[in-house]
Amino acid sequence: MIYSLYYWPGIQGRGEFIRLALEDAGAAYVNRSPGKNPGVFAPPYLKAGRLVIAQTANILFYLGPRLGLAPKSEARRLWLHQQQLTVMDWLDEVHAVHHPIAGSLYYEEQKREAKRRAEDFRSHRLPKFLRYFESSAGAPFSYVDLSLFQMVEGLRYAFPATMKKLESKFRKLVAIHDRAAKRPGISRYLSSGRRIAFNQHGIFRHYPELDR
Amino acid sequence: MIYSLYYWPGIQGRGEFIRLALEDAGAAYVNRSPGKNPGVFAPPYLKAGRLVIAQTANILFYLGPRLGLAPKSEARRLWLHQQQLTVMDWLDEVHAVHHPIAGSLYYEEQKREAKRRAEDFRSHRLPKFLRYFESSAGAPFSYVDLSLFQMVEGLRYAFPATMKKLESKFRKLVAIHDRAAKRPGISRYLSSGRRIAFNQHGIFRHYPELDR
Repeated sequence: MIYSLYYWPGIQGRGEFIRLALEDAGAAYVNRSPGKNPGVFAPPYLKAGRLVIAQTANILFYLGPRLGLAPKSEARRLWLHQQQLTVMDWLDEVHAVHHPIAGSLYYEEQKREAKRRAEDFRSHRLPKFLRYFESSAGAPFSYVDLSLFQMVEGLRYAFPATMKKLESKFRKLVAIHDRAAKRPGISRYLSSGRRIAFNQHGIFRHYPELDR
Repeated sequence: MIYSLYYWPGIQGRGEFIRLALEDAGAAYVNRSPGKNPGVFAPPYLKAGRLVIAQTANILFYLGPRLGLAPKSEARRLWLHQQQLTVMDWLDEVHAVHHPIAGSLYYEEQKREAKRRAEDFRSHRLPKFLRYFESSAGAPFSYVDLSLFQMVEGLRYAFPATMKKLESKFRKLVAIHDRAAKRPGISRYLSSGRRIAFNQHGIFRHYPELDR
């Protein structure tokens, strides 16, 4: 099976959560630019044979057991999916920090509102998500850990000062990050040309005024 | 099996999407106030025997085939789940209209930002979601249709003027709403004391200044 992942090739974004799972497993895939697809609200979407699947967490739910990154029992799969959906909620909030008013407006057009939102994110929401995932750490390695790796990487890029202050309180989460980075497929991927660098077009963006 | 749904009993909120599925199927359930649950980021969550499941769409994914509101084939279940996750994204945006800065602040503390966000929601995001679900209407009845019923009901409450202008373009979606309302379980539920009225504490709130 050669998977086709449809996501903009110049940004990590939500597509990166899928790429990490495919790369970790050494799966055969091609990354294509998304076209018009009537059955899909927004990228990323995956073509797997005749199946077309959208929504990041849904794609990972499908891929998980097939890539050896999730167990097959229903109860465990539901639990992992619950965790992944919570990661996606967290990611939405990261995006909303620099786009609190509208995705169709530039950051500069909503900078004042972004500063207010960033303050709440740094002091309440970010620590709340970190605490939650710290307390639920400890399960066998899964695609959720790859997503947590990406969250830690992205947050370090976007909020370096804030993360520097917070990280020491969340050692289990940092350990998950470090463990993921050392996996053969991930380590190969990160040092390859396929890993796109963080930039100011993705979800994780570094605006010093939002990090303080 | 008696299900326990943990969600605040005074608001519809995300819990209502679960309640509608349980009520439609005539399932035995009790609604309890959420307590501290270490494995759950936020309500709603469902107890089903020894299973504890959180995240609204995840709960519906689990309940769907058990309540006769989803087929059993994997491809169809993934498709319905994708639709449900898109409904949840839509619902998040409805909430963000009156709380663009922080859930922990009162509406009055972010009213100016809310007005800006509402303008974008009414003119871009709301029509985009309506178009998407209008174009994908037509599948056999499922829990997703119950959620679309709730979206139409909620949007009519929160944005009566905007919906009055838009609805005539989305007849299939309105037909889904009307069909859901007439189902025996739903019709019984809506006229019972169990259906909580919309109010200014839930996700759908009517602020005339946001509806224009």
